[in-house]
Amino acid sequence: MSITKEQIEQAHERIKPFIHKTPVLTSLTLNQFSGAELFFKCENFQKIGAFKIRGAMNAVLTLPKEKLKNGIATHSSGNHAQAIAYAARQVGTKAFIVMPNTSPQVKVEAVKGYGAEITFCEPNQQARETALQTIVDNTGAEFIHPYNDERVITGQATCAKELIEEIPGLDFILAPVGGGGLLSGTLLSAHYFSSATKVYAGEPEGAADAVLSLKNGKIEAAPYINTIADGLLTKLGDITFPIIHQYVTDILTVSDEEIIAALKLVYERMKIIVEPSCVVPFAALLKNKELFAGKKVGIILSGGNVDLKKFCEWFS
Amino acid sequence: MSITKEQIEQAHERIKPFIHKTPVLTSLTLNQFSGAELFFKCENFQKIGAFKIRGAMNAVLTLPKEKLKNGIATHSSGNHAQAIAYAARQVGTKAFIVMPNTSPQVKVEAVKGYGAEITFCEPNQQARETALQTIVDNTGAEFIHPYNDERVITGQATCAKELIEEIPGLDFILAPVGGGGLLSGTLLSAHYFSSATKVYAGEPEGAADAVLSLKNGKIEAAPYINTIADGLLTKLGDITFPIIHQYVTDILTVSDEEIIAALKLVYERMKIIVEPSCVVPFAALLKNKELFAGKKVGIILSGGNVDLKKFCEWFS
Repeated sequence: MSITKEQIEQAHERIKPFIHKTPVLTSLTLNQFSGAELFFKCENFQKIGAFKIRGAMNAVLTLPKEKLKNGIATHSSGNHAQAIAYAARQVGTKAFIVMPNTSPQVKVEAVKGYGAEITFCEPNQQARETALQTIVDNTGAEFIHPYNDERVITGQATCAKELIEEIPGLDFILAPVGGGGLLSGTLLSAHYFSSATKVYAGEPEGAADAVLSLKNGKIEAAPYINTIADGLLTKLGDITFPIIHQYVTDILTVSDEEIIAALKLVYERMKIIVEPSCVVPFAALLKNKELFAGKKVGIILSGGNVDLKKFCEWFS
Repeated sequence: MSITKEQIEQAHERIKPFIHKTPVLTSLTLNQFSGAELFFKCENFQKIGAFKIRGAMNAVLTLPKEKLKNGIATHSSGNHAQAIAYAARQVGTKAFIVMPNTSPQVKVEAVKGYGAEITFCEPNQQARETALQTIVDNTGAEFIHPYNDERVITGQATCAKELIEEIPGLDFILAPVGGGGLLSGTLLSAHYFSSATKVYAGEPEGAADAVLSLKNGKIEAAPYINTIADGLLTKLGDITFPIIHQYVTDILTVSDEEIIAALKLVYERMKIIVEPSCVVPFAALLKNKELFAGKKVGIILSGGNVDLKKFCEWFS
């Protein structure tokens, strides 16, 4: 493991001026409903509406000045794109974002709103990577990967660190898993700052690569992709997988029906807006109540960027 | 004025064990958008999802024991019904709620969920009052009016008191006005605890009785009723009107389109769920930016009890 406790502590100090210390909310009703004592770490209230700003800020703030002036680049249609665009503006450099030409207009506008330069490509991995490489070759911009990057993982780790500092003695922390950036950061912070706390991940059945990778001991693709949790579609990377393999207690999968039921509970009972990917761990807890009965459980609510029209399709 | 500063302070101590000290949220984006420095007092996170629990708890906790054992009663299809039901359960007495037989099932279930006894009536004022009087005559239960009651107003005043204590030096506080319970409580707390703070009210154009009452110097009915802000349909009472007449700076009206635009901003930018009545003051601020430019403005977000299906009609 090359990410140290001190690196996470330093990252936290480094990014603090640029991020919110997000609140931890509780709900007696949801405690009664779940049978556990729940502490929701609300990254939906974070800058850009998601935890991704933590990793992006840490990456950009650790770049040498001569490198930084060329700008930063990434490919993403989601929260990482906004995070990179926002982070670039904070330090006064350019952001180059490759987005699939099928990206929702609302996401394109958000990234543009932060002043980033967008390059559209065909919606496949090959086209993304080619477009990105061209930009990097032409501009000298630094590529910041959405999750398979130690600077990013170290930044994401600060979220669980804050939760552990605010709520000591957690029996469990639950986080979602997509590419594994947030999950590996969470695992490292639990390991370093609260070693008795076990970490579970939640994953959609319709993008179940991580649970399969854990079972087979190597990075696997999902058997199929079909879920509303559109932030969790990617597979693990060669930096995130070993951390997850070493430290995670287990990965629990949930169906889209279970995700929607959890979304509804969070909207109606907690009165906050979260995105589907964000409630996957809470849905996993509700599906496996016996694992968490009577325990203190921290749940990372990862983000709140949701299209109101889609929202209404789920509840119609 | 018969409600004193000391009564508000005592009410606050009395109800504290039963309510949340709700958070005050800020948003740089909404500050930039509005040109003012905004502090949102989030009563959507309050017990039962609205400020109404403050007045109900204060009323029930000031009843003499021999009176309390007969139970408490009210007529309401909204948040006050839930507040009375919840408050009764907290002190171990019965709640009798008269609801129109047209009430949404979700509201009926919520009131039942708190263990209240519901009596249905025809959806008009006469039927409500007759049904309520019958209950009071038969049971000896104490009627607690939704707003025209000093115990209730004193309880609602604790909301602005908390806001003033957390954010000193507010130039303005904005609150919605329906029957005037929250508004008169807010006016009294501003008067007693932050006398330099001016208070504006927001009112829907489709239930514009308060602005007319203020103009004519006596309680008036709305010229017409047609608004999605269903918590603000009632007219002022003979206790709330004089307080409002004496202390309010002005009442600003907004259309349903302006309410929906404000709702959307709060959902998308603050990531919280609020009900239409709740954003009426924020919509009024956005419509009258010049009044508040560069000022520190507290906005009371009164509640978050919204039917997800209706929500989707507004945004479709």
